[in-house]
Order: sequence, then structure tokens, then C-alpha cells
Amino acid sequence: MGEILIMSNIYGKNIKISIFGQSHSSAIGVTIDGLPAGFQVNFDELRVFLQRRMPGQGSHTTSRKEPDEPEFLSGLVNGITCGAPLTAIIRNTDVRSDDYEQLRDIPRPSHADYAAYIKYGKAHDVRGGGHFSGRLTAPLCIAGGICLQILWQKEIEIAAHIKSIGNISNSDFDTEIAAVRAQGDSLGGIIECSAIGVPAGIGEPMFDGMENRLASILLGIPAVKGVEFGNGFEAVALRGSENNDSFYYEEGRIKTRTNNHGGILGGITSGMPIIFRVAIKPTASIALEQDSVNLKTHENTKLKITGRHDPCIVPRAVPCVEAAAAIAIYDALLDPRGYI
Amino acid sequence: MGEILIMSNIYGKNIKISIFGQSHSSAIGVTIDGLPAGFQVNFDELRVFLQRRMPGQGSHTTSRKEPDEPEFLSGLVNGITCGAPLTAIIRNTDVRSDDYEQLRDIPRPSHADYAAYIKYGKAHDVRGGGHFSGRLTAPLCIAGGICLQILWQKEIEIAAHIKSIGNISNSDFDTEIAAVRAQGDSLGGIIECSAIGVPAGIGEPMFDGMENRLASILLGIPAVKGVEFGNGFEAVALRGSENNDSFYYEEGRIKTRTNNHGGILGGITSGMPIIFRVAIKPTASIALEQDSVNLKTHENTKLKITGRHDPCIVPRAVPCVEAAAAIAIYDALLDPRGYI
Amino acid sequence: MGEILIMSNIYGKNIKISIFGQSHSSAIGVTIDGLPAGFQVNFDELRVFLQRRMPGQGSHTTSRKEPDEPEFLSGLVNGITCGAPLTAIIRNTDVRSDDYEQLRDIPRPSHADYAAYIKYGKAHDVRGGGHFSGRLTAPLCIAGGICLQILWQKEIEIAAHIKSIGNISNSDFDTEIAAVRAQGDSLGGIIECSAIGVPAGIGEPMFDGMENRLASILLGIPAVKGVEFGNGFEAVALRGSENNDSFYYEEGRIKTRTNNHGGILGGITSGMPIIFRVAIKPTASIALEQDSVNLKTHENTKLKITGRHDPCIVPRAVPCVEAAAAIAIYDALLDPRGYI
Amino acid sequence: MGEILIMSNIYGKNIKISIFGQSHSSAIGVTIDGLPAGFQVNFDELRVFLQRRMPGQGSHTTSRKEPDEPEFLSGLVNGITCGAPLTAIIRNTDVRSDDYEQLRDIPRPSHADYAAYIKYGKAHDVRGGGHFSGRLTAPLCIAGGICLQILWQKEIEIAAHIKSIGNISNSDFDTEIAAVRAQGDSLGGIIECSAIGVPAGIGEPMFDGMENRLASILLGIPAVKGVEFGNGFEAVALRGSENNDSFYYEEGRIKTRTNNHGGILGGITSGMPIIFRVAIKPTASIALEQDSVNLKTHENTKLKITGRHDPCIVPRAVPCVEAAAAIAIYDALLDPRGYI
Repeated sequence: MGEILIMSNIYGKNIKISIFGQSHSSAIGVTIDGLPAGFQVNFDELRVFLQRRMPGQGSHTTSRKEPDEPEFLSGLVNGITCGAPLTAIIRNTDVRSDDYEQLRDIPRPSHADYAAYIKYGKAHDVRGGGHFSGRLTAPLCIAGGICLQILWQKEIEIAAHIKSIGNISNSDFDTEIAAVRAQGDSLGGIIECSAIGVPAGIGEPMFDGMENRLASILLGIPAVKGVEFGNGFEAVALRGSENNDSFYYEEGRIKTRTNNHGGILGGITSGMPIIFRVAIKPTASIALEQDSVNLKTHENTKLKITGRHDPCIVPRAVPCVEAAAAIAIYDALLDPRGYI
Repeated sequence: MGEILIMSNIYGKNIKISIFGQSHSSAIGVTIDGLPAGFQVNFDELRVFLQRRMPGQGSHTTSRKEPDEPEFLSGLVNGITCGAPLTAIIRNTDVRSDDYEQLRDIPRPSHADYAAYIKYGKAHDVRGGGHFSGRLTAPLCIAGGICLQILWQKEIEIAAHIKSIGNISNSDFDTEIAAVRAQGDSLGGIIECSAIGVPAGIGEPMFDGMENRLASILLGIPAVKGVEFGNGFEAVALRGSENNDSFYYEEGRIKTRTNNHGGILGGITSGMPIIFRVAIKPTASIALEQDSVNLKTHENTKLKITGRHDPCIVPRAVPCVEAAAAIAIYDALLDPRGYI
Repeated sequence: MGEILIMSNIYGKNIKISIFGQSHSSAIGVTIDGLPAGFQVNFDELRVFLQRRMPGQGSHTTSRKEPDEPEFLSGLVNGITCGAPLTAIIRNTDVRSDDYEQLRDIPRPSHADYAAYIKYGKAHDVRGGGHFSGRLTAPLCIAGGICLQILWQKEIEIAAHIKSIGNISNSDFDTEIAAVRAQGDSLGGIIECSAIGVPAGIGEPMFDGMENRLASILLGIPAVKGVEFGNGFEAVALRGSENNDSFYYEEGRIKTRTNNHGGILGGITSGMPIIFRVAIKPTASIALEQDSVNLKTHENTKLKITGRHDPCIVPRAVPCVEAAAAIAIYDALLDPRGYI
Repeated sequence: MGEILIMSNIYGKNIKISIFGQSHSSAIGVTIDGLPAGFQVNFDELRVFLQRRMPGQGSHTTSRKEPDEPEFLSGLVNGITCGAPLTAIIRNTDVRSDDYEQLRDIPRPSHADYAAYIKYGKAHDVRGGGHFSGRLTAPLCIAGGICLQILWQKEIEIAAHIKSIGNISNSDFDTEIAAVRAQGDSLGGIIECSAIGVPAGIGEPMFDGMENRLASILLGIPAVKGVEFGNGFEAVALRGSENNDSFYYEEGRIKTRTNNHGGILGGITSGMPIIFRVAIKPTASIALEQDSVNLKTHENTKLKITGRHDPCIVPRAVPCVEAAAAIAIYDALLDPRGYI
């Protein structure tokens, strides 16, 4: 009888997002506990949102076809939330298990394979990355897509965009991605996200601040290796007099002339737009041959990953970042309020 | 009867660190729930550790004198943990309330004052930043200092250092800080931290990953505006073939030739050193006159902050980062393990 | 835009049991987060266990036919847990929505209808009790059935039995149930449960004691209105000298001569069998006409409930109590352990 | 290096009550995280409330003198909550450690001594029951006393009373207690509590129901071995037609003619008074000689407990039950509300 660590996949303080499934299990899905009763989900908008993260869309993404059409098992009556937990699943269909056989013994560099092997042992579902697959961002987007719709009703808008891919900022990324794909290599990038309309006073000091809560969920998106708020790491090169954001009144409302603080002060929203950026590392799965180890023979070995892989997941990660932000912000909006 | 938001100040999944107190309340303190029974606290080492974050140490820090000697109220018998929650407090003594009177109406730019005013209303303890004061990192360091001692027993070492202050990297920072202090201005910086000896397999996928848990607590340190793991934001300029960390066997152990992943893959530790950096913004309290608003008269106004303030808190934040990392890593080490 | 309360349906500190679905939604189900990797589920045993709570088994239960065959969507590879969250669903098939139409306006006495109407408004899924249906104990039994299997491996046995139905103790209950059914009325009862083999030292003082954790989940079973441990409410008629359980050594092990404490002292297990009882009120749905109100017309009215209803759910609740106890005890066994 | 279980002492979903201290540590105390800002604590009323649980009040309680005057360390400015965590401590003064020396080796029957020894080993603070002491209900009453004051503002009243002591119901209990004290023995009893004015719709289905949450905290009061809601265990002897509570309109409000459900249906409040009872076992510490074991010599032995002990803690437990109920109900009132 061995000792094996166990895990948790639930996010949220007021709503609880519980994500389940592996890349090659029967289905993947999400349960959202804590949605208010009486909200009419707009399924057309949700479908459009989910398509933004779907593979097989452009020339530079994996050619695996996934309709990714969610089936709603519970929590709705005639498309309206009823207060009970909402569960949606997506069936896994276009699956070729044999692509992954060699990975059981030879962990892919900079993938979760090795860490998962240590944690779960031989029982780990190695097929397609198992529970660590980027495919698990689909249920995240279902949950986030619904939260986005609720936030729209409150006139809160969240929008993310690509800030850079590789070394290239604000330009046509497609040529670069195509070139790198041809070389069997991959690219990362930076995604910037803003949330407009979040009222001042949301979030809590110390460990439940708006920054902490955003970072907690954003770092759950595979390949995210850094998060910064406002001007983030650039702030360190400024003096206080340059970095401080002056307050002023405009049309009766308090604003700041600059927004280096990214809409969050002391963990609490200031009413200014929330701004943050995430760093996404280059896709770990590349076609080029790499050095690795054979866990069975205990020898150094070469690894050549076959199968279909995105040379750059940054474009598909944009809606995931919006989804994560929507969940974190909606959750914070639900923080208990004391009546005295 | 108004509606007022309330807050939470507890960190941890297995141990619970609960921090209380305001800058000018009778005392500040921390309760650590979940320490194992039978651990002999080394109070001399703890005192040395706490002194590293104390003000009044060097020429460039605030001149407020704080002995910061903790009193242990519970959880110990003869200096050994007994299994009950450990509570330690530090009395607030050298307090000049009158320094802060004007701040009730005029929020300091890039401070929590305004957000706290929106959240807590007139009841907010504005004195010295109240619960948002950097002084609250003292109890964080008590908790972290004890966790560091437990980790040492497990041969896990955590060490942070200043990577840059302002634009200056790896050099003598003191001259720069003195110059900026003379100008009534302030500086930020980057702190880098590594944890060596953390076994592979710690942390959980998605939302309870080692990265998420470190970010959650690190962003609770005042002035931290960004966190990155491994090569973080620099990874985005690399190709996958450059960024991936090859595995190899060395003396029977699996290692990676580079450590761009910062010791964490898929949220789970790889056994390589954990490496991360935090961005600390320039101290918001500066002597230079700034633009702000008067919350009472609803007019734009000028603000000149008096009193003692660090022109650069980065040196004092180094032990805070170590403390936060120690808490997060020790907490993750305690994750439940299934026996099957 | 109204203000509507929201809800949470997750149990557990180390494993997380998240139950979803309504009586008449597409499916009901459960996600178990935190099962150890490498456990071989015995599906035959699980099926036998689930059949014990199925309706349509005996003469005295509802005639609704539910195969209740769970489909496992995730968390397993070849029937072995892989460390990822395990999700199982049961499709709702034999559903007659029209049975429940009148209930939208006329709440059934001693049902959740009225409270749910206040909480969720018109959006509440009134069909078959919605999320409050006893049917939701099926996913509880899936989760509990798996926990029971893990506990068996650790030589921990949990067994519940009917202690009384109505006024009748330890006898043939079937005649009484048949008689009451013929009268259009219903019966409650007491279920007693014991857990043998739980090691001493499990559970925590105060709010995470073994008693608190058992009560938390047991009171989640519909119709449970009381929980008592050891001799419970009978203890109050005894003197300390009669109620105290003397310690003694037997074959090198410490035992107590009596077990009035029900295996739990100060919230922590003593190594003696855990003993507790739950009170199950008579089924609220009865065929006899009752007084109620019409929420639409705001008038007092009569209500006659049609459709199929158990006159006594106590027999079917026995495996639910075992399932709940297994989840609570397994969860407590996973409490973090400090190594010092 | 041994393996030792660790523990948690925090209650609450929205407010967090964290209790610390041991019977003979420097101090005991409580941190309440989540109180709304702006509440004026009435310290005179709080003092009166705390005196109700103080020992040395009547002829039948322990003669230990405890002023139990709380010192408030944080969370207040001029007696008004400021939104930061409120911490109050009570110094332990009248302490005679030598009374408890023999208990290190000889566990008292039906006390937590033995379970704590297994859990915490030799490091356990055995003095006065350590963290398991009934004295820890003093900080519970500080927290509960403040919650009671907030609830009064909302016109919610909570009141508990003794329903029976030993075999005696609704009568003069003092004679019985005096007689039992003279015999060196002890008595238990039943406390009944009601909460009036709690609005309908509070609490959540399944595991976060109002019943589950009340039971969770009530079972944290030492010596409580059972909890029942409404008519509880008596319901099982009734038929559904007798036990169901008919709805009717009275002055435009929906009420039930009887209140067998104790104000809670499906875990959610109905607007009727919440009614529950707890069973308190006879005090385990009695003067009469008892059988126990010597953990050091591994032999059966006799134990004669010396020192001061209440022959009946039921009267002092009444305010503790009110405090616990106030905390649970106020916490549930703070459950997040979705705006749609």
C-alpha cells in the first residue's frame, strides 16, 4: 500500500467552480455552485464565446476537430438558472490514444508528465496530458462565459487581447507562428486583460484581495508562468512620484489621472479599470527532438513528440483569460456584505 | 443602516494563518492553527529573523523604533508546540496618531486609503494605514519564521535576495536610496526567492498548484504588484526548444539541465529549486506634494504627507517574502495523502 | 433585478463531494475530488450497495422504476482511480412532470417547497422537489459506496440498521408500513450506525471534531432532524459515575468497559466503535388531504398530493447513512499530519 | 521524527471565528474575521452576558474565580468595529498547575485526555484539559455575545433555557445539584434554544443547511452529545399527518399552525421560530474514584480526581448555546446573495 498525494480542483469563495475530466476520459465538465436563480443563459453568445478557444479554427492551430458542444445536465429549467448547481459536460470524441503511448515512460520536457508521475504513480492518466490537458480550459470557459453574461448585466465588461507573441508586439503574429510551426518549434506570449465597470470596494485585504484571487485562477490556466497588475514589473523602475496615481474629481466621481495601480489598491478595487497581464510560456510540445529520461530503464534518452500540437496557444488562451477573470470578479462581487 | 462589505484575513489550506491588528491598535498578532505538536521553537533564531524586517535598522529606513518582541499567548508548553493554535502578539507602542489626522479626508495616492474608505466607510481605522499597514507583515514573519524552522528540519532552505532596486541591479543600493530619500521620493524593486529541497510531487493541478498558492500569499504583502515563476515573463521571448528544460539522470536522480520552469510543472513541484520573483512598487508615501481629493468637501486638493516613511521598503520586504514562501510551501507539504 | 440567495452543495475538508442535479433534470451526479490514485473500484459491490437505496424494491416503497446505473465520466482509467476528480452521473428517465404542476403555487406542508420558493423565487425547479429531492441521495451513495470500499481495505467497517419505525422497535416493520400506506399516511424512524476499526486520534477539537463532521453530512440527508452520539440524549438521565466509560488494558490495547461516549471524546476518536443515531421524520408527502396556502391567490387552501410516494423512507435511508458516515470518516482520516 | 496529527479551530463560512488558548496558557482568546465596519459594541451588555457563563456564581459551580474580563486588541476604534479582524483575549490568572500532574499518565474517563494523548503525544498540554477545557467557551461567548448584539439590531432574538437536569424537568434544579455534589458525582441535562425573527430563506440545501451549521458549532461545545431540531427524535413516533405543519395565512404572512419542523425545512429557514435542543452529558470530572489505565506503566489503575469541578455545567452552558446559535445564524444571514 503506497502513499499517494491527492488533489483539489475547485475555485471560488462564493461561487464554486469544480472542473473535472481528462483529455481522453468519456467527458470533461464543470459544476458551478452558487449561481443566482433566475438568470437566463444566452446559449448563442456562449457558443460564440466557446468557439474562440476551439482548436481547428485557423491555420496555426492543431487540426483536431472538437465540436465542444456542452450538454447541460442540471441547474437549469428552460434555460434559466434555478439555484441548484449547474453542471455542463462536453463529450470527448476525436481521440487517438495511441499517439501518447510512449509518454508513459518518457516524460515530455516542461510538461506536467513527470510531476504527475511522481504524484499519482502509474495510475496517472497519461493520455493527452490527462487532467493537465489544455482541453480542460473548455469547461473553464463554460463557467466563465456564463459569469461574463451575468457581469454584462451589471455593465461590467472584460476584454483580453494579445500584447505580444514571441518578440513581436502589436503586429501580425500569423506569419511568425507559421514560420515557427514549419521549424517544429513553438512560441509563447503575453495576454493583457482589462475589466471595466467593476465598482470600487470589491476584494479584501491581505489574502483575499482582488489581485490574489485573480492570480489564483489565472495561474490555473496551463502555461501561465507570471501575473502582473497595473504596470507590474515596470513599476520597479519608477520613482514613487512617477508611479503614484493622483486622485481627482471628474463629474462628481473620484478617478486617478494615471492607472499604474491597475484598478486595485490594498487588494480592493478603486473603481478604475482593472488591468493585468499574464505570461504564457512557449508550448512545451514541439516536434523537434528533445532530451529526456526513460522512467522504466532509468536511462537518458531522446524523445520525438508526434501527433498534433499548437505551435502557439496564445490566441486560444485569450478567452480563457477572460473567463478566469470573469469568474474571479463575479466571485468577489458576491462577497458577503454586513448590514448594520 | 448602510450596507458594508466585510473581510477575511486567513491563509492556508492545512495550516491556517490568521493575522489581526491595525497599525495603531493595542496589538497586532497572528494565530497559526495546524502546527504539529512537539516542535521546539528556536526563539533566538526567530528573533534574528524578525529583526531583518524591523524598521530603524539602517540609514535608509523609517526611524520609528519597534522592538517587535512577540509575546506567545498560547499553543506552546515550555517552548514546544502542543497541538493547540499558537497565538503571538506584538504590542503597538511608539505611536503618534496625530501624524495621520488629515488622511481621514484626503486619501494618499496609490495607498489603500480610498479603497478602504469606500469599503468600510467612516469606521475605517485610518491611523497609520490601519489593517493595511506594512506593519502587519510582522505577524506574517512570526508565522513564516516558525514555518522556516520546521522546513529546515526537513532540509528545505528558502532564501530571498534583492535582484534590483529602481533601475539598479546587483550593486550597492544604499547610495541610490539615500539620494532618493533626500529628494523626498521613493523606490521599488524586485525580490527573487528560491526554495531548495522541496520534494517532487507537491502542489495540486489547476487552482491549488504550488504557483497559485505562492501567488496568493505573496500578493498579500503590501506593494507587491506582480509574481513570476522560473523565467516568467522572459519565457515569452523564447522558443519552446529554448525554454523547455531537458530531463536527465544524475546520480540516480532525475533533474533538468536548465530550470526555466522554476521547479513547478503543471502546478506540481518537479524536485528542482523553486524560483520566483515579486515586483514591489515604489513606496506610495512620499514627502513630495501630490494631487488628491478631499472626500468631505468634494474638491481637488494638494496633499503633503508628513511623518516617517521608508523611501524603499524592498530590503525589509526580503524576509517577508521568505516568510510567505515558507508558509505556502509548508502548507502544501501538509496536503492530505491517500493511503490505498 | 431582484436579490436572490445562492447555495453550496459541497462536503468535505480533504475530499470534496460535490452533488448536482434535480429530480427532473437531465441527470444527477457527483464529483469526488481528492480520491487517491490507484484505487480499483469494485463496480459489482457498488451496484449492490446502490440497489439498497433504490425505489421499487419492496412492497412498501414507491413504484417508480430507476435503474440508477451510474455512468463514470472521469477520474478512472480501466476502473482504477487516476488522481483526477471522479465524476459519475445517473440519467433521469422515468419522469412524469405533470404530477407536480399544482405544487408551484401550493407548498406541501413540511417539504422544502415553501423555503425554496422564498429563496429562489419562481425560478426554483419545483418538479419532484428539484434539488431537494430524496433522489439526490443516489449520488451521495455513489460517493459513499466508493469511500466504504476504501475503508474496507483499511479494515474499517460501517454498518447501519433500523432501530425503530414509528413506535415499533426491533420487529417486523413491514406490516406497520403496509397499514399506514393503506391509510394514505407515513412513518418515520431511527437509524443506528456503527463504525468499527477507526483508529484512535482521528478528528479535531472544537469545530472539526468527528461528531461535528458526521452531523454536518448526516443532516444533509433529507428528513433527518436529529443526531446523537454514544448514548446521546439518554446520557442526561445518568450520573457521571454511571455515564463515564472506564479505561482498561486488554491484550495490550486500551479500551473502555462501556461505550457511552460512542467512540468519540473531545471530538477525537478513542479507538472504540463509533456509534450514532439519526432521527428521520415521517415522509412529508402523504396522500391524505392537508391544509396549505396558495402563493398566487394568497388564500388558505386544501392540498391533496397525488403521484407515487414512499410511506416510509427509513429502509432506503439506511445505506444513505452508511454512505454519509463513510465519507465523513474517510475525510477525517485524510486530515493533514505534521511530520516533525 | 514522529507523525502527529494537526488541528483546526475555525468556524464559519462568512465570518470566521478562530478560538485559541489552553486552560493554563498565558491567555485564551478569539479572532472574529468578517464583522461589518461601523458596529458599536455595547460592552456593558457583553459583560453581563459573559458573567452568565462564569464560574463561582452560584453554590453549585466551581469555586475558581475568573474575572474573565476581555481585553480587545484589534478591530475596534473607540468601541466601534472598523472592518479589520477583532481579537479579544482573556488572561489566565487563577491557575494551580499541580492539580493536574497525575493526569499526564492516567487519562480521566470520558475526558479528551486519552484521545489527545494519542493525537498530540507527550507534547499535549494536559494542564486543566488544555485546549479541550470548558474554559475555551469564554472566547466563544465573546464572539457570540457580539453576534447577539448585531442580531438584536435586526430584531432577531435568541434565548436558551434549561429543559431538564438529570431526570428533573422544569423545576428547581439546585437541590438536586447540591445533593449530587455532596456525593462526589455529577449531572447532565438538556438545553432548549429558540431563535425568533430569523427571516425565511436563510441557509442552504444539503451540507450548508441551517441545521448542519448549527450542529457543527453546537457539537463544538464540550459535553454536547446530541442535537435535534423541531420535535427531533420525538417525530419518529408520529405519523406524517400528525407531524406535518400546515401552512396558513395570518395577517398577510405565511405561518405554520404547528412548528414540528423547528423553523427549518430542507435546510432553509421557514420564518417560524428556530427550535433546537442539545444533550449535555454529566460532567466527566467527578470526585468518586474511577477505573483507568496508567499510560506509562501499561497497567490498570484507580484514579481519584482532585481539584475544583462543577457537578453540573448545564446552567453555565446556556449562554454558550445562545452564543453558538448567534454565530451560526449571523453567519448564515451573511451568505452571498446574487443580484441578477
